[in-house]
Amino acid sequence: MTTPGRGRRRGGPDTRAQIVEAARVRFAARGFAQTSVRGVAADAGVDPALVHHYFGSKQGLVLAALELPADPRERLGGVVAAGPAEAGEGMLRVLLGVWDDPELGTRMLAAVRGMLEPGGEALFSQGFVPAVLLPVGEALGLDRPELRMSLVASQLVGLVMSRYVLGLEPLASLPHEAVVAAYAPTIQRYLTGPVDADG
Amino acid sequence: MTTPGRGRRRGGPDTRAQIVEAARVRFAARGFAQTSVRGVAADAGVDPALVHHYFGSKQGLVLAALELPADPRERLGGVVAAGPAEAGEGMLRVLLGVWDDPELGTRMLAAVRGMLEPGGEALFSQGFVPAVLLPVGEALGLDRPELRMSLVASQLVGLVMSRYVLGLEPLASLPHEAVVAAYAPTIQRYLTGPVDADG
Repeated sequence: MTTPGRGRRRGGPDTRAQIVEAARVRFAARGFAQTSVRGVAADAGVDPALVHHYFGSKQGLVLAALELPADPRERLGGVVAAGPAEAGEGMLRVLLGVWDDPELGTRMLAAVRGMLEPGGEALFSQGFVPAVLLPVGEALGLDRPELRMSLVASQLVGLVMSRYVLGLEPLASLPHEAVVAAYAPTIQRYLTGPVDADG
Repeated sequence: MTTPGRGRRRGGPDTRAQIVEAARVRFAARGFAQTSVRGVAADAGVDPALVHHYFGSKQGLVLAALELPADPRERLGGVVAAGPAEAGEGMLRVLLGVWDDPELGTRMLAAVRGMLEPGGEALFSQGFVPAVLLPVGEALGLDRPELRMSLVASQLVGLVMSRYVLGLEPLASLPHEAVVAAYAPTIQRYLTGPVDADG
């Protein structure tokens, strides 16, 4: 929350939470590209250096706002290193590794439910996709990374919703490897197959 | 709502709404297969014949509970008639025809938001899929229709969530035909390509 006239606060027990809340509001209202660490700091009434101290970067701030239980950048590092030809299966294994883990999966479900609440939607489209997915597409050297990663996101969102949120059978009970076999060709085609933005 | 001791009511202004509410509760609690018109009628305190009169069948009752603005059974009839080899593109065109229509799309969004509310989830997995999608898979003569239609559902859910609910760009602004070109091969592979339930 902005506290005009009170001057900038230093780090305190609630400061981190106030920065995250300010970030959530800014990302939702303006989108990832138009949000700056400086602007979030101003809204939270703190020095930008404090935001950098807590979160490292704008990307780190998005991840804090999303309340993800695991840092997807670390987990996706191996996917980028393995190169584009393996990336479909690799991304899917990262997603399943988090979601099929009982503790992480429960916390991911809470994070996703937050994104499904009114006002939480922008956390996904203006937060998760530009801060997490798009950098993977760029690091893999894909052409049209925005378009390709929005197609990838649509299948990953649908898989998460159907298997974990809506509990749709038999998909919800399908063994890990069967899920990989079913979806890896889809993700791979979105990443490296033909795409046409004009129809 | 059940009204024990008051006897069965005849049709009245609120009766239809009470039947739909009773159906929603039953489908959510017991699933599509375990819900009967008779059980819904008992919960609503009406004669089963009145349920048949209003909704025709259990399937019609599901559609009323989902509050869909268009009857998907009518729209999907042409997909079934065209046969399995065309069904991927056909299903996608039906979905886009409804969602890209300004009036129907707005009403679909309201229906989907209802499914995303706590308790509304079963309307999708226990309602829409068994009452709408699965019969299409069966009418097309697919092997393993439950597994295949759950894969299809996962991509359609992800497309609807990303393009219409979350407004993920550039997918949200992609022309109709580009969406068909991107997703038809995916849906077609889930319908008629290789699937393996064991991994």
